[in-house]
Amino acid sequence: MMETTIIEKGKVKLHNPILIEGLPGIGLVGKIAAAHMIAELKAEKVAELYSPHFPHQVIMQKNGVMRMIKNRFYVVKGKKNDLLILVGDVQAVTSEAQYEATGKMLDYCQKKGVKLIITLGGYGTGKVHDKPRVFGIVSHKKMVDDYKKYGVLFGECKGSIIGAAGLLLGMGKIRGMQGLCLMGETHGSFVDPKSAQVQLEVLCKILNIKMDLKKLDQRAKESEAFARKMEKEALAAKGMAPQAEPHKHDLSYIR
Amino acid sequence: MMETTIIEKGKVKLHNPILIEGLPGIGLVGKIAAAHMIAELKAEKVAELYSPHFPHQVIMQKNGVMRMIKNRFYVVKGKKNDLLILVGDVQAVTSEAQYEATGKMLDYCQKKGVKLIITLGGYGTGKVHDKPRVFGIVSHKKMVDDYKKYGVLFGECKGSIIGAAGLLLGMGKIRGMQGLCLMGETHGSFVDPKSAQVQLEVLCKILNIKMDLKKLDQRAKESEAFARKMEKEALAAKGMAPQAEPHKHDLSYIR
Amino acid sequence: MMETTIIEKGKVKLHNPILIEGLPGIGLVGKIAAAHMIAELKAEKVAELYSPHFPHQVIMQKNGVMRMIKNRFYVVKGKKNDLLILVGDVQAVTSEAQYEATGKMLDYCQKKGVKLIITLGGYGTGKVHDKPRVFGIVSHKKMVDDYKKYGVLFGECKGSIIGAAGLLLGMGKIRGMQGLCLMGETHGSFVDPKSAQVQLEVLCKILNIKMDLKKLDQRAKESEAFARKMEKEALAAKGMAPQAEPHKHDLSYIR
Amino acid sequence: MMETTIIEKGKVKLHNPILIEGLPGIGLVGKIAAAHMIAELKAEKVAELYSPHFPHQVIMQKNGVMRMIKNRFYVVKGKKNDLLILVGDVQAVTSEAQYEATGKMLDYCQKKGVKLIITLGGYGTGKVHDKPRVFGIVSHKKMVDDYKKYGVLFGECKGSIIGAAGLLLGMGKIRGMQGLCLMGETHGSFVDPKSAQVQLEVLCKILNIKMDLKKLDQRAKESEAFARKMEKEALAAKGMAPQAEPHKHDLSYIR
Repeated sequence: MMETTIIEKGKVKLHNPILIEGLPGIGLVGKIAAAHMIAELKAEKVAELYSPHFPHQVIMQKNGVMRMIKNRFYVVKGKKNDLLILVGDVQAVTSEAQYEATGKMLDYCQKKGVKLIITLGGYGTGKVHDKPRVFGIVSHKKMVDDYKKYGVLFGECKGSIIGAAGLLLGMGKIRGMQGLCLMGETHGSFVDPKSAQVQLEVLCKILNIKMDLKKLDQRAKESEAFARKMEKEALAAKGMAPQAEPHKHDLSYIR
Repeated sequence: MMETTIIEKGKVKLHNPILIEGLPGIGLVGKIAAAHMIAELKAEKVAELYSPHFPHQVIMQKNGVMRMIKNRFYVVKGKKNDLLILVGDVQAVTSEAQYEATGKMLDYCQKKGVKLIITLGGYGTGKVHDKPRVFGIVSHKKMVDDYKKYGVLFGECKGSIIGAAGLLLGMGKIRGMQGLCLMGETHGSFVDPKSAQVQLEVLCKILNIKMDLKKLDQRAKESEAFARKMEKEALAAKGMAPQAEPHKHDLSYIR
Repeated sequence: MMETTIIEKGKVKLHNPILIEGLPGIGLVGKIAAAHMIAELKAEKVAELYSPHFPHQVIMQKNGVMRMIKNRFYVVKGKKNDLLILVGDVQAVTSEAQYEATGKMLDYCQKKGVKLIITLGGYGTGKVHDKPRVFGIVSHKKMVDDYKKYGVLFGECKGSIIGAAGLLLGMGKIRGMQGLCLMGETHGSFVDPKSAQVQLEVLCKILNIKMDLKKLDQRAKESEAFARKMEKEALAAKGMAPQAEPHKHDLSYIR
Repeated sequence: MMETTIIEKGKVKLHNPILIEGLPGIGLVGKIAAAHMIAELKAEKVAELYSPHFPHQVIMQKNGVMRMIKNRFYVVKGKKNDLLILVGDVQAVTSEAQYEATGKMLDYCQKKGVKLIITLGGYGTGKVHDKPRVFGIVSHKKMVDDYKKYGVLFGECKGSIIGAAGLLLGMGKIRGMQGLCLMGETHGSFVDPKSAQVQLEVLCKILNIKMDLKKLDQRAKESEAFARKMEKEALAAKGMAPQAEPHKHDLSYIR
């Protein structure tokens, strides 16, 4: 395998689909939010994405069966729009790998008819927030007004959006797609279910759907445990003994 | 050469072949076991694998003839199943390289009709074991019961399987192949012929073959000496003087 | 996206075009000079260049709209020669990436009919210069005399020209193009608008055009602020917290 | 440019050509020997090799003209065999790059009808030698006796041959070519014209040619000066100020 590869489980026909991306990132905010959507909305897995840019290892599951490291596409059927939700174990690490993988994701989205991409991320501030805000960045100027009314704050972030949450918007725009990145305000050094919650509240309004948000804390614990495990294994793969304790600052997913 | 390349020595026709992989890994357990099988079962070399992801150097042999760094496929003819045994000097190092090389190995296996892959590795615990156990991980849930009866322990390992021993199973599954990884319990910091022995005892039962296991210690010494030499040369290639003594912790094959 | 890609905005027809390159480099001399030309000559943007070798992040702009990291081609119409001006946020970092990106730039130049390439850079001396000189390097021996008369000094530089400013000349020559690199004398550790000014004075003579050079200081401040921001973001992308202050010596654009 | 590229100067027809390789390596032994052959035998340049795996910079020459970093093929016409001599500024650095470049060199050699490859290198011992010996490694067992009679010592080297001197033999053998590597005994930390001299004496006997060996010291000085310059520039390209003095141990060509 020399390129990122997406394998579909059977035929997938979607009606005006919107891509929702929640891969691991700052505070795991987007990942927790997307994982919660999948569970609460009983989304169905429709495709898996493998990549030579992911770690060269397979995960040993408790039942004695291994599984590849991968990203996954889920579908929730909707009246106006189907949702295509992208989650996963990891993101590719190098620039070249990110551009390649994002290109393959967009190929798939185009084939499925996606015209709008919503990416979920965190915006690290180095502070703890009682009432985290939700910031937004869009692909086209005219979209700012469309999303302001849902309580998304524009023009208050600086810097750049690293990884798929940013590149999906940038590379999607080149292909004529619209994009919105929702960023939950977060410290950056901790897993943050509260930030995921406010993000989901805004997203529910945007998508005009309802969702129970009670189990978010549990989802956060699962995501954190998995992220720590992946980090530990990645260190082991770099030649350290598996029993070694990774330092906390190595947990780059939970900056 | 820009891709991993497998060159066959003449025509190779196999009857229901099973791939047995024993490339260098933790404690060199799998490598010792596979090398022993090749010697004891008088396996015949049928193909060589070269890769641009291997070190860019050739080995000077005592007889004045150089040889490339490579992996090798051997065949043992059997009644029910032929065995295709994969051994080698090194594994590719980066993620991209591992996915590429594993893909090429599977291309070859598919052409030869392989439907079952058994990979041999070590499971590092940081402890010395008087009676090392043999752990297993499979590609499909239903296989657990098939191999439990041979004394393989399932569901007792956590973490991930790094390199070819894991990826052959994961990527093989995508191509419809079944896979079993046998892991000999081992400390992780030493070459471990005893772990290779219990692993081979289980493998012999699974394959329904017999093998003399007396010369395993000698095989272990050869494997360790070669691994240390490769490591030393790899360091030299990185700009250190050839006469430099590599530090022990650089011997990543024998974690 | 697996290769550097240039996307044109509509049809671009050029008359005897000369490529002027001013990507970020030593002292940001070339970048400031080219950015000033674009502003003063009211150049029109005709194409954008994206590359998987650029950082895997998008820039958040103050208006709430993201944009990709990119290079840009501008056009100034001229009597004898149109000018095709190449500027950008970054240069690719590795050797392979530079050769690939430069090849794509030259593909585009050839399609547009470019036969002469002028690259703008800085020549770092480690000293502050009251009256910086302008050094030149050409692709063909016979060109030395052509440009000496404009005050360009030849044969006084040693070492090598790193990045696009050099490779465009070298790889362009293989394709039959002529090339001139103008290097403004500069300290190397500071952004240097004065060096950009003397460079532009010489370039104006060579191109037989006029330009107001008063606003160069302002241009320099913008370029420096952007370069520092890019550097900071690049560090953040490497796993450091976004709030971290990059050390000054990390600002490799302003060596 | 995404692959190593060889550009011929006009048509080159060779008669039973032998490839002689002398790229930079340990003690610069092979490079000095090959450069001396080219000068003394008045070899004619027939082709240039460029590679995206070489440093992304061009060299500023004293006459104000830049030139690409490259390898070069020269030809010396002979009665029985033409000689195709390969020299150059640098070797590619990574494994993948070496395999790719060596493959391209062999493509060219095959097209020109090369059936025998002689690579020139140094064998570092960490000692100074009054009377350095010449060691040999061959591609095929039967060749040992052919070259023993010229005073080449076989079976006395251990370890591996790094870079083109080794890979040309290994990869050439896969294509059905014969190969001999001549290694001049050398300390490894100094440029060694004396080792190049004994190597050339042996090579002259093998090729049945004569050569004046007086100017070897001068050739060594030129080669060392260039190697130091390349190293210095390579460091500058990695973000260090051009004026910085590289540490001696960074001069990896002259280990």
